[in-house]
Amino acid sequence: MSHHAFSEQERAAVYRAIAERRDMRHFRPDPVDPEVLQRLLLAAHQAPSVGLMQPWRFIRITQPALRKSIKGLVEQERQATAIALGERGSEFMKLKVEGLDRCSEVLVVALMDCREPHVFGRRTLPQMDLASASCAIQNLWLAARAEGLGMGWVSLFEPRELARLLNMPDDAEPVAILCLGHVDQFYDQPMLAEQGWKQPQSLEELLWQDSWAEYPERGQSDAD
Amino acid sequence: MSHHAFSEQERAAVYRAIAERRDMRHFRPDPVDPEVLQRLLLAAHQAPSVGLMQPWRFIRITQPALRKSIKGLVEQERQATAIALGERGSEFMKLKVEGLDRCSEVLVVALMDCREPHVFGRRTLPQMDLASASCAIQNLWLAARAEGLGMGWVSLFEPRELARLLNMPDDAEPVAILCLGHVDQFYDQPMLAEQGWKQPQSLEELLWQDSWAEYPERGQSDAD
Repeated sequence: MSHHAFSEQERAAVYRAIAERRDMRHFRPDPVDPEVLQRLLLAAHQAPSVGLMQPWRFIRITQPALRKSIKGLVEQERQATAIALGERGSEFMKLKVEGLDRCSEVLVVALMDCREPHVFGRRTLPQMDLASASCAIQNLWLAARAEGLGMGWVSLFEPRELARLLNMPDDAEPVAILCLGHVDQFYDQPMLAEQGWKQPQSLEELLWQDSWAEYPERGQSDAD
Repeated sequence: MSHHAFSEQERAAVYRAIAERRDMRHFRPDPVDPEVLQRLLLAAHQAPSVGLMQPWRFIRITQPALRKSIKGLVEQERQATAIALGERGSEFMKLKVEGLDRCSEVLVVALMDCREPHVFGRRTLPQMDLASASCAIQNLWLAARAEGLGMGWVSLFEPRELARLLNMPDDAEPVAILCLGHVDQFYDQPMLAEQGWKQPQSLEELLWQDSWAEYPERGQSDAD
């Protein structure tokens, strides 16, 4: 045991947040306390970032008309995704894939503009900016769970259209529409598992030693 | 306050892990308890993933010769990055950018092969696979901090060369070399801030309402 380890109770709390966090789609419209929202955003902002570039930008959506436009973009992409899914398209259309109608808060997360000169840790892997922003979003997600709030990460949108709607510069890039708010209950399992869309694989199937290995059996894909 | 909220002590523990997690480069070689490693990997595996695709693959590096080859790849990219950084190249070369020499555990995280059919939440944003894998890595990072262990995410490598070294299929993609282990102490601030590479920006500078906005002042870039 490291002497830097948290207490047993603290460790359990961290593992609990990790285990009970869910990608939520069902919300109650009660408002989120502004102080809680501020804590969550600060948690996000404490994420690691490649070369300390802090590439995340947060836009809080407050205008109802703007939320409606965002919802329109998501609905458009929902239809396009259903078509792309082929045989599973009608099954997909029955799923609730966003919570924009009821959640209290909507946040758009984007990658900043002018990222090109940042080559520290990105010369061969420029996509590490998204990796950093994703760590920030995961921080927010876990902190929200600890606060008893649900969050959903919606990625059903055409990024150039969302960028235009929010007046982003050409080289900025929206990567998430976050729905945040109170929930009646957290799903026991990931919603897509509960609803039978897909069964999760176990860690053992995805963990190897010293070399890539093959799976005993292939996981089910969207196209199955 | 939501009735789903954790207790005050539990919430404080989650925020503590978020605040005290550091991207570590300095390690002690003492071994990591295999049970702790297993807990950390399970924490990673509990991450959200787009369309429940669980795109992360973990390869634990145990052969010393293989670790040495990986270290060689990183050193090669370190030199290339220094050249790309121009004027700041010599300053960069003085930084410790990886901990492969001393850390107890090395894990390579890769995006799985055969990702193309997974269009759920990825039709317009295929990079959401990396976003999911990054959430998994952030889970691992936070759980490691709670266990008193340090972790560093090294992205200084040529992905095709690392993929070849680990016998990955052409359509798999390594995104992280994780160094994990005991540390003498955690940095008080991000190492790159402590060492004067860059000063972090505040949340206020990166948080807007309903529209992209301009910064009061530009943050320092690598190329400054």
